[in-house]
Amino acid sequence: MPGNTFGTTFKITTWGESHGPMVGAVIDGCPPKLPLSEKDIQKEVDRRRPKKFSKISTTRREKDLVKIVSGVFEGKTTGIPISIIVENSDIRSQDYSKISDKYRPGHADYTYELKYGLRDFRGGGRASGRETIARVMAGAVAKKILALNAKTEIFGHTIQIGKIKAEKFDKDFIEQNELRCADKNVAKKMLTFAEEIRKQGDSTGGIIEIIIKSPPKGLGDPVFDKLEANLSKALMSIGAVKGIEIGEGFKCAEMKGSENNDEMAMEKGKVKFLSNHCGGILGGISTGEDIIIRLAIKSVPSISKELKTITKSGKNTKIQTLGRHDCCLAPRIIPVAESMAAIVLADMLLAK
Amino acid sequence: MPGNTFGTTFKITTWGESHGPMVGAVIDGCPPKLPLSEKDIQKEVDRRRPKKFSKISTTRREKDLVKIVSGVFEGKTTGIPISIIVENSDIRSQDYSKISDKYRPGHADYTYELKYGLRDFRGGGRASGRETIARVMAGAVAKKILALNAKTEIFGHTIQIGKIKAEKFDKDFIEQNELRCADKNVAKKMLTFAEEIRKQGDSTGGIIEIIIKSPPKGLGDPVFDKLEANLSKALMSIGAVKGIEIGEGFKCAEMKGSENNDEMAMEKGKVKFLSNHCGGILGGISTGEDIIIRLAIKSVPSISKELKTITKSGKNTKIQTLGRHDCCLAPRIIPVAESMAAIVLADMLLAK
Amino acid sequence: MPGNTFGTTFKITTWGESHGPMVGAVIDGCPPKLPLSEKDIQKEVDRRRPKKFSKISTTRREKDLVKIVSGVFEGKTTGIPISIIVENSDIRSQDYSKISDKYRPGHADYTYELKYGLRDFRGGGRASGRETIARVMAGAVAKKILALNAKTEIFGHTIQIGKIKAEKFDKDFIEQNELRCADKNVAKKMLTFAEEIRKQGDSTGGIIEIIIKSPPKGLGDPVFDKLEANLSKALMSIGAVKGIEIGEGFKCAEMKGSENNDEMAMEKGKVKFLSNHCGGILGGISTGEDIIIRLAIKSVPSISKELKTITKSGKNTKIQTLGRHDCCLAPRIIPVAESMAAIVLADMLLAK
Amino acid sequence: MPGNTFGTTFKITTWGESHGPMVGAVIDGCPPKLPLSEKDIQKEVDRRRPKKFSKISTTRREKDLVKIVSGVFEGKTTGIPISIIVENSDIRSQDYSKISDKYRPGHADYTYELKYGLRDFRGGGRASGRETIARVMAGAVAKKILALNAKTEIFGHTIQIGKIKAEKFDKDFIEQNELRCADKNVAKKMLTFAEEIRKQGDSTGGIIEIIIKSPPKGLGDPVFDKLEANLSKALMSIGAVKGIEIGEGFKCAEMKGSENNDEMAMEKGKVKFLSNHCGGILGGISTGEDIIIRLAIKSVPSISKELKTITKSGKNTKIQTLGRHDCCLAPRIIPVAESMAAIVLADMLLAK
Repeated sequence: MPGNTFGTTFKITTWGESHGPMVGAVIDGCPPKLPLSEKDIQKEVDRRRPKKFSKISTTRREKDLVKIVSGVFEGKTTGIPISIIVENSDIRSQDYSKISDKYRPGHADYTYELKYGLRDFRGGGRASGRETIARVMAGAVAKKILALNAKTEIFGHTIQIGKIKAEKFDKDFIEQNELRCADKNVAKKMLTFAEEIRKQGDSTGGIIEIIIKSPPKGLGDPVFDKLEANLSKALMSIGAVKGIEIGEGFKCAEMKGSENNDEMAMEKGKVKFLSNHCGGILGGISTGEDIIIRLAIKSVPSISKELKTITKSGKNTKIQTLGRHDCCLAPRIIPVAESMAAIVLADMLLAK
Repeated sequence: MPGNTFGTTFKITTWGESHGPMVGAVIDGCPPKLPLSEKDIQKEVDRRRPKKFSKISTTRREKDLVKIVSGVFEGKTTGIPISIIVENSDIRSQDYSKISDKYRPGHADYTYELKYGLRDFRGGGRASGRETIARVMAGAVAKKILALNAKTEIFGHTIQIGKIKAEKFDKDFIEQNELRCADKNVAKKMLTFAEEIRKQGDSTGGIIEIIIKSPPKGLGDPVFDKLEANLSKALMSIGAVKGIEIGEGFKCAEMKGSENNDEMAMEKGKVKFLSNHCGGILGGISTGEDIIIRLAIKSVPSISKELKTITKSGKNTKIQTLGRHDCCLAPRIIPVAESMAAIVLADMLLAK
Repeated sequence: MPGNTFGTTFKITTWGESHGPMVGAVIDGCPPKLPLSEKDIQKEVDRRRPKKFSKISTTRREKDLVKIVSGVFEGKTTGIPISIIVENSDIRSQDYSKISDKYRPGHADYTYELKYGLRDFRGGGRASGRETIARVMAGAVAKKILALNAKTEIFGHTIQIGKIKAEKFDKDFIEQNELRCADKNVAKKMLTFAEEIRKQGDSTGGIIEIIIKSPPKGLGDPVFDKLEANLSKALMSIGAVKGIEIGEGFKCAEMKGSENNDEMAMEKGKVKFLSNHCGGILGGISTGEDIIIRLAIKSVPSISKELKTITKSGKNTKIQTLGRHDCCLAPRIIPVAESMAAIVLADMLLAK
Repeated sequence: MPGNTFGTTFKITTWGESHGPMVGAVIDGCPPKLPLSEKDIQKEVDRRRPKKFSKISTTRREKDLVKIVSGVFEGKTTGIPISIIVENSDIRSQDYSKISDKYRPGHADYTYELKYGLRDFRGGGRASGRETIARVMAGAVAKKILALNAKTEIFGHTIQIGKIKAEKFDKDFIEQNELRCADKNVAKKMLTFAEEIRKQGDSTGGIIEIIIKSPPKGLGDPVFDKLEANLSKALMSIGAVKGIEIGEGFKCAEMKGSENNDEMAMEKGKVKFLSNHCGGILGGISTGEDIIIRLAIKSVPSISKELKTITKSGKNTKIQTLGRHDCCLAPRIIPVAESMAAIVLADMLLAK
């Protein structure tokens, strides 16, 4: 089954491989007359790019210049498919030649070969993080729909790297630091830790939190298309995400009904929830309260530490994965996760 | 968008409401010539039913007698849709009349009204746990497909209730205790705890683990249809599930690449992973190792403790949810979660 | 790919085989609060049944008693899936035993064996005209949606049988004669012809016309989901239909642009088309004028005339198909075709 | 519902508008390792272009240079989405300015405004015949799959224009004349007729036949996804097609069962049909015999004859549609129809 389309009413199809000439997204189902410019999309794509001079990110440098080639006329969408492309520029395939007959532990090399019968460009190119640029482009459009229809705002921050956990929350600080941590002091510690890990030729995992403020109320369906189900599919489809929780999530295990139930009251003529343990979703449908999601991000598998592995021909060997890699994916996954969440909400909003 | 169909190649459609005459499932896409009897399905449906004389489960008692009315002939599937029905018998709608104008905290009452403009039978009936019987019936068929094609076995156990955690693992003990805990001593403590909680008129959350032994290798897709993405949608669509993790899950945050990567080696001519931190899935595709999933289950919202809430007409009030309810859903969700996992795997296996 | 679901927003799934215990339809996506009773559906199902004492129809006699088992409460839909069942009663499988190792010409026997590797019950049962009862049940619901939302009325009549063509049109007469011909005199001739053909042990083809009065305006999509495309899929999926045309259809070939273009004018402040050559659809979208469709119906392949064929084991032989069969399907296909047209329109109306 | 994706296993998504910078197609689900070059696709795209110096075609001249930007590496598909683009060059939007406030009879102008609330670029651009270039690009890939897997060949020819009908069949002559007529003498008459019609400022309809030689056997499904149903949707989704028939089609009406049934016999150890009245499909599934389809093509609505119409603001007026237009679409639709047929067959073949 082809797996490069996501959504039903706001439907995105992505294409392109890490080392081909372009990557792109086609968005079908965006309503006409939505104000949309390349700048709107470029802004989000730029957030996804590694920082210049970063000591913890890949040194691969792409301009990632966004071009809209269909579906927008005189600054507004026309209702037909929106096609957006970005050219790849900084391609150095030779970096990979040395390890091409070994399976990299933690990578998809072995499983792609299992599936396709070849360690192919489908894997090499499509499993690459570069694929996520198309998600961010489509997400930028989804965010505009949500902002205009429901004043919804979606943002994410890093709440844990290694054992270091954020404690305070200063929203404005998030985009001011490379780790996208909302706690100034902790951000510093995280950076020091990440640099150390990098020097050791190793990498680290983390946890990010996605917050959807003022989501549309009443989105979701009672059975298979529960809002949390669709969000989970979307977010668990991002490479390196190994867990997701909504609201109290795994903490629920230790909570009684009397602690976890969110009581309600009228306040100034409005319905008010006295808590938000459920994270904004009840019975598969949004309550209107903020939707709170946390994602577990595994460490980047590409490390320069030597590990045991096997060759394609079935011999034991060792491997180091050099090349240009991030040491912690958490902050770079944030714009991708925001985008996927936005796509799910826009899809369900438009289906309503 | 209609949300009562799940899967693409092995496609299930479920119907029926808590207080209607029947519930049912239609399975489209099951291959012909699969041996299948009502007994195969009854066995799984019986595992979902509350135990007789249980002190911790709902006292609603249904016979849940399974009837196959299409798609099976002389003990084998014919390739046409398999239609399975179960009649509802123990219906007492009057239990709900007292609270019908109040929103029950932790329940879907308010969100359904948001969505449908009425606190309706779609909510009342479809959001009910009774809907899951259809999932278990379809799951029983999926399990047979997996067992015959890949000798796959799927089972679950309760690993935490409140703060009590299982430590040992005795697979044979799982189905011998009502809590489906694989640790004999801990199971006793869990039961005592659950009974106490029930006496208090309260409920508790828990964590369950689903293990897929010998899954088919090479299932999944690199982009949106990653195996973990499809499993997450399926499992997060079960009511009361608030979190999911695969392999190390949220523990990943604290692990380095050198700790989390699963090394490989050849052993007696066979590929062997030296660990299974990834939980059987790499790059969205199954490795062939056991797939390990954990689910966070929230406490049952129906409790007899008094909570603040509002009426439909917007007045502050209080509510107690009496009626017949479980005090901990974890063990009863296990067969449902196994079923949803089986349906995802069967779907992706047949699509291959 | 499973092929027993049709539609996306108003989505129907049908099940059941000719010689099993029941046939049924599940309708997902019907809006809540629609008035709906078993009577509404029974009425349409009865129109599909062969007439009592007919000299031109099958003598298979089913009661076809409709039961709604989910989705309707106190005379109104609730928004959850509507499940409708009908029990089969007059089953005589032995009728088929004599010819079970020969491929019946004009039937699906050979192609099913090609596809499934067996001349199976998928074929035997599912290819049967009995499957259409589920279409009619779902169509009855779709008709109610259209009637309530847009005062749309859908009906069909037989315009040709053999070489005999209807000339006059008296709508009221359609349901008063077994052939559903709107021309009283021609109807008589058609009946005489059909009886003769039947006596000869032969059968005949025909042409039916489906008229959709006051369809919703603006339904359809400019590219792949043109209204005529979706109608064609729906109607060509009915067994025995071998051609479809909209508006002038094949006559278009001989018409110039100046003859075929429908001019427009304002009349009493309303947009008026001065002709309806296009049959109510322009550029894939409904104009609001009546939608006019004609369907070519092939002769029933089951005839008692002896024909050449082969056996499963590949020997030349001859075959007569006795049993209980219609001699002309055209009139009996009318309610099925109306239903499929209604389902397409309801689907596209609700998707809007 | 977004309507720019077609197919389920071999899934195409098309984008681009008549007067935008590019048009394109994304093909998801093409198997890896298929030999594929830009030349393969260019060849088909060139067949769709109007002939140079033609007296009966539009004078719009595009180079239509095909570029594959994803999914092919070293001459072979990789299994990831194939993205193909073509730049638009000869755009003269000003041609349309004069008639922009009048509804052109026979065009989609009025219905788009009904649907979208604006006579927009969705209509203007997407309803344009230029959209079909993406279908032809995807069809070229589908044709390669069919040729390699089943030696299937698909071609079309014009069998009628106005009242002039082809009588002889010389396959080699088809691509040697602009009308794609397989009868040399008749082709000449058709051309003369078309030129005359053009001089009158008028246009004409026609009928084309699509022949699928050596189709894969056993394709199709017994209920909603009958092969003829899927072909009908695909082919009726091409602008200007107003009717479709398979095999004998509308002639069936006059045929008896004994005439229309295709008898079978063994010949040299092989199954042989003694006739092919059914046009290669029985019970929704391909027999392996040639699939024969005829399509009714309406006259081009853009004519320079003056017609009555109304303005957007609801005033009666007259209109002439000048600009660059074809006078008979039949021959130019042939490559598009071949492509859509190929896409359906490839989709169903890969789903098997």
